[in-house]
Amino acid sequence: AVALASVASAAELKPEDQIQYRQAGYSFMAWNMGKIKANLQGDFDQGQVEAAANAIAAIANSGMGALYGPGTDKDVGDVETAVKPEFFENMEEVGKVARNFIAAANNMAEVAAGGDQAAAQDAFGKLGQSCKSCHDKFRADD
Amino acid sequence: AVALASVASAAELKPEDQIQYRQAGYSFMAWNMGKIKANLQGDFDQGQVEAAANAIAAIANSGMGALYGPGTDKDVGDVETAVKPEFFENMEEVGKVARNFIAAANNMAEVAAGGDQAAAQDAFGKLGQSCKSCHDKFRADD
Ligand code: HEC
Ligand code: HEC
Repeated sequence: AVALASVASAAELKPEDQIQYRQAGYSFMAWNMGKIKANLQGDFDQGQVEAAANAIAAIANSGMGALYGPGTDKDVGDVETAVKPEFFENMEEVGKVARNFIAAANNMAEVAAGGDQAAAQDAFGKLGQSCKSCHDKFRADD
Repeated sequence: AVALASVASAAELKPEDQIQYRQAGYSFMAWNMGKIKANLQGDFDQGQVEAAANAIAAIANSGMGALYGPGTDKDVGDVETAVKPEFFENMEEVGKVARNFIAAANNMAEVAAGGDQAAAQDAFGKLGQSCKSCHDKFRADD
């Protein structure tokens, strides 16, 4: 748990706080991906899909790159990270993967606002693919 | 860490996953509150404030109430929760506090898009107050 009192500008954040905040962002996106998936498989509630897509897009656009500062490349005390060393050695590739993800998240939000279920299915597939392509390269397996 | 594979509709989520997802949402909002605060105290970067405010508003509107299902009122195994029993005994008051928070988050996003720093300061104060009024009633102290 990260206390509210510990927040400050990203530059001042301790490495262990940066790790926990980035994990929080990913985790909250995963919850919202799950909601979109459930809506595509069952009853399609456009409002819920739109809210979930907006949360993912806003998190994608929030500048999470600032949470990969010095000292966040390995576990800090009992705060464990699954990031791979490759992330820090290949910032150009990270940027490409991240821009692709942001574009897919923005597209998902736009499509969700439109309300077309088939288009939402397609946008969801592309978005999930963009998560996976980052994990395949830069996140260690559990 | 909550695995991507474990996501499903909110109704199907295990209590311990619900607890971790809600903590992730709050934690990620706290990071973004910290960024807005730093911008108000130092150089004011309108783009960063707007992105942070959008993340908070989208999380506020994502339906986190679904993460307070049965069995999430107390620790589950080693997943600890700070929610107070009062939360589940007083849903009308929770709803009031939550609606006030959502309104303050939407207002912050609107004001941030406008770019007026004094207005942003005011909106930020009100938003922080809306977090605090929920914590005072429904979250246990550390
Ligand atoms: C409607 C009630 C409510 C509102 C509004 C609310 N919180 Fe909370 N917050 C809680 C509760 C309850 C918990 C404890 C959750 C748990 O441990 O299961 C919590 C936990 C947290 C935590 C700790 C998370 C962790 O990692 O364990 C932080 C940080 C936090 N809130 C920040 C905020 C911020 C910042 C805002 C506003 C932008 C906010 N909260 C708005 C009720 C609220
Ligand atoms: C630019 C790279 C990148 C993108 C894009 C990305 N992830 Fe990840 N993800 C990571 C890395 C790196 C970690 C490990 C973070 C750590 O442990 O410090 C991670 C961790 C996670 C976790 C575990 C969080 C925790 O609690 O430890 C989940 C769940 C997850 N990602 C889901 C997603 C979802 C869903 C998306 C897309 C909507 C996504 N990720 C997009 C790189 C990415």
